[in-house]
Amino acid sequence: MGFWHIVLWELLGTAALILLGAGVVANTVLRGSLGHQGGWLLVNIGWGFAVFVGASIAAPSQAHLNPAVTIGLFTAGDLPLAQVPAYLIGQFVGAFLGAVLCWLTYKLQFDAHDEPENTLGVFATGPVHRNLPWNLVTEVIATFVLVFWILTSPGAKMDTGGLPQFGNAALGYAAVAFVVISIGASLGGPTGYAINPARDLAPRIAYAVLPIRGKGDPDWGYAWVPVVGPLLGAVLAGLLARVLPT
Amino acid sequence: MGFWHIVLWELLGTAALILLGAGVVANTVLRGSLGHQGGWLLVNIGWGFAVFVGASIAAPSQAHLNPAVTIGLFTAGDLPLAQVPAYLIGQFVGAFLGAVLCWLTYKLQFDAHDEPENTLGVFATGPVHRNLPWNLVTEVIATFVLVFWILTSPGAKMDTGGLPQFGNAALGYAAVAFVVISIGASLGGPTGYAINPARDLAPRIAYAVLPIRGKGDPDWGYAWVPVVGPLLGAVLAGLLARVLPT
Amino acid sequence: MGFWHIVLWELLGTAALILLGAGVVANTVLRGSLGHQGGWLLVNIGWGFAVFVGASIAAPSQAHLNPAVTIGLFTAGDLPLAQVPAYLIGQFVGAFLGAVLCWLTYKLQFDAHDEPENTLGVFATGPVHRNLPWNLVTEVIATFVLVFWILTSPGAKMDTGGLPQFGNAALGYAAVAFVVISIGASLGGPTGYAINPARDLAPRIAYAVLPIRGKGDPDWGYAWVPVVGPLLGAVLAGLLARVLPT
Amino acid sequence: MGFWHIVLWELLGTAALILLGAGVVANTVLRGSLGHQGGWLLVNIGWGFAVFVGASIAAPSQAHLNPAVTIGLFTAGDLPLAQVPAYLIGQFVGAFLGAVLCWLTYKLQFDAHDEPENTLGVFATGPVHRNLPWNLVTEVIATFVLVFWILTSPGAKMDTGGLPQFGNAALGYAAVAFVVISIGASLGGPTGYAINPARDLAPRIAYAVLPIRGKGDPDWGYAWVPVVGPLLGAVLAGLLARVLPT
Repeated sequence: MGFWHIVLWELLGTAALILLGAGVVANTVLRGSLGHQGGWLLVNIGWGFAVFVGASIAAPSQAHLNPAVTIGLFTAGDLPLAQVPAYLIGQFVGAFLGAVLCWLTYKLQFDAHDEPENTLGVFATGPVHRNLPWNLVTEVIATFVLVFWILTSPGAKMDTGGLPQFGNAALGYAAVAFVVISIGASLGGPTGYAINPARDLAPRIAYAVLPIRGKGDPDWGYAWVPVVGPLLGAVLAGLLARVLPT
Repeated sequence: MGFWHIVLWELLGTAALILLGAGVVANTVLRGSLGHQGGWLLVNIGWGFAVFVGASIAAPSQAHLNPAVTIGLFTAGDLPLAQVPAYLIGQFVGAFLGAVLCWLTYKLQFDAHDEPENTLGVFATGPVHRNLPWNLVTEVIATFVLVFWILTSPGAKMDTGGLPQFGNAALGYAAVAFVVISIGASLGGPTGYAINPARDLAPRIAYAVLPIRGKGDPDWGYAWVPVVGPLLGAVLAGLLARVLPT
Repeated sequence: MGFWHIVLWELLGTAALILLGAGVVANTVLRGSLGHQGGWLLVNIGWGFAVFVGASIAAPSQAHLNPAVTIGLFTAGDLPLAQVPAYLIGQFVGAFLGAVLCWLTYKLQFDAHDEPENTLGVFATGPVHRNLPWNLVTEVIATFVLVFWILTSPGAKMDTGGLPQFGNAALGYAAVAFVVISIGASLGGPTGYAINPARDLAPRIAYAVLPIRGKGDPDWGYAWVPVVGPLLGAVLAGLLARVLPT
Repeated sequence: MGFWHIVLWELLGTAALILLGAGVVANTVLRGSLGHQGGWLLVNIGWGFAVFVGASIAAPSQAHLNPAVTIGLFTAGDLPLAQVPAYLIGQFVGAFLGAVLCWLTYKLQFDAHDEPENTLGVFATGPVHRNLPWNLVTEVIATFVLVFWILTSPGAKMDTGGLPQFGNAALGYAAVAFVVISIGASLGGPTGYAINPARDLAPRIAYAVLPIRGKGDPDWGYAWVPVVGPLLGAVLAGLLARVLPT
């Protein structure tokens, strides 16, 4: 695949992922939204199906949508190094664009929210109990599950045609959505499950630069955890997948 | 496909869609209904599976069920202009019929509801914060996601046999249901996600003409937003899908 | 298929359906149960997946599990009259057995429930607003959707091998589960969606005869509605499916 | 399949199952977790998709993940006795490992929980009303449904290639997830649905030996119920499946 082909489809797919993923948090968190206080399962299902939509769209670039997936595939020996930069560029630019679109979709809700300084959570993750080493452990374990599943599950493996070998594409993307719902429901409690550096960093930058009414601090002190944790989890998963007999 | 063939199956499918979609709102909103205050996720899943049921039924006409889908396919060059009127007629008549059936199903609940002047929401969408340009933006973005997904996803493309190429039909319809659940959960907060002109306008007309006890105003001032917004989003998605390399 | 073959598998599948379906209501309604007050969506998903489990088990007999489905198929000309009695016998006996198993599963909860006279709802349906003609309308419409979907959806049609032609069996049963979730979420509010005479009548008889602590009245005055309504809806769906061009 | 091959993949899959399954309970139960008080449906979906993830990972060993499944397959004559020990070893060691990982993921939440003596429920099941014979009945019935479904459903049968014959693997694992969601929603109310001796006993041991802050009693008096009940249900299902004509 060509460089710009990868950039284009990763960008479109990741933009959809973040628009929908940040969107479900906005819907739940912001006052004056119909899904206000809709509960954790709504957030989990929202993010899971956001992956389904984004991955379907990004099928031509094999739908990584996540630097942790890209790095995990590379570590496992399933992706040439030369393709890595195109994936990362598409993912980060797409995630930024998705965050902007989410803000536009919920513009009136952001303008009317009664605690505007607490709206970072729509865009980026943060821990309930702040303890960076343990927060890192949580992100490492959660991302390990995601990437290890992708690397080892029969049918989730990418073929050269750009589609998971799950019999057909829809099944593969639904399967990934189920895994993301599972990780959110089960491992998302302590840190909000970034499990994707682009998902967290690019929208955090968007939060920092967009003229969102009364916005608060982007919490740069935490920003490295949801980048380093997922990458570490991905490398560990890639290394384990490499040595396992199948 | 013949004109009346399209009208018939779009009518049946859209009637099922609106009966079930308006039904889940009625179940949640009306007092004396077992699903009263069932939450946003119930509404999202209700509308998503309403699409599943309606689309399965309308398989012989390729299951548009939505003028935005029809216009999006036409804009992308995937539907001849001559078939457009049959789709629109079937969709609007079916949506009206579905709204009537929903009223009959919940007749006792409508009769007993304690705020009968506020029952428009069962039939048509409305914004939490009223600002028509921004409400339009929300509907454009949400519908763009739906139509762009349909136009670009591998397997969601229609073939000449009338079924999505998702390996089989059930998968394709489940996939569309997941997308609609996703859009509802993530982008439905500000305006109630019409994302379908027939879904909103025809039941609004039904609300205006049916002898529903103590009913309120049909809010014609807002009625153009959930028509124009989805059509605009569909045209934009169709144009983008047309120029993208696959 | 032989008579006893149909009876056996319909009995096993319907027993599983009612054990699980009545079970999710017991879990939600009875105090001292972990799912107490779990909400309408829990009930809908519980019944939907109960259909999935029961239908998978009853695959050898083509998984009707519901006299309305049997009568609908017969009306549409898709089932010989000679097979109808075997289906009905298996369904009613299985539904009775499932109700007994549900009582045994929740024995301690029934014994400890603080309003034992109000436990009929675990076994049989009842209307929120009692008005038998309108209650009948609701059951007719809801069952019509179910049976019409089964009769017209591509892939839901039964083939001679005993499995729905949905590409494979799991898809077909998941599809039916989605339809039942949809009907529950959208049309179940007024009467509790019996949509199946065996599902309602046999457990009601079980409620009447089992030594359940402090039980109340089986409400025989309502019992004909969830029998006649579903059968009427099924006949209407069968007649319409028969005359429609495909 | 070789002994260590089975041990390895059952271990990995069961570790994922318990990490995610115990995780969703931790998320719901522990204060300071984003899913706190997320409801029974969240727990059911969390455990269901935990099975999906674990079963996908353990595909090379045919994904039993549960001694009750192993014993049920053996009883039905579908598994040679010589393979049973490898399955059980992998399942128990994996379940212990998963419990440890769950504790590490929620370390800060365990440390901050205000009723640390009541955290056993994250790891092991317990009855609401304590009456061991009736608790046993509940576990027998619930496990019977699971194992009987696996043994009789078309497509859930294991083939020699290590994958369920559901058309493809993803479908089979999603189907099992739906069954587990169903059992949880419908039959999990009285005892918390262990339905798997490894799922209950190994994490209970982990709870007993790990240095969890302020932990309470592991309740050894109940520990045999979620071991014996599931095994009994599995043997009954295996025997019935053996004698049934298909």
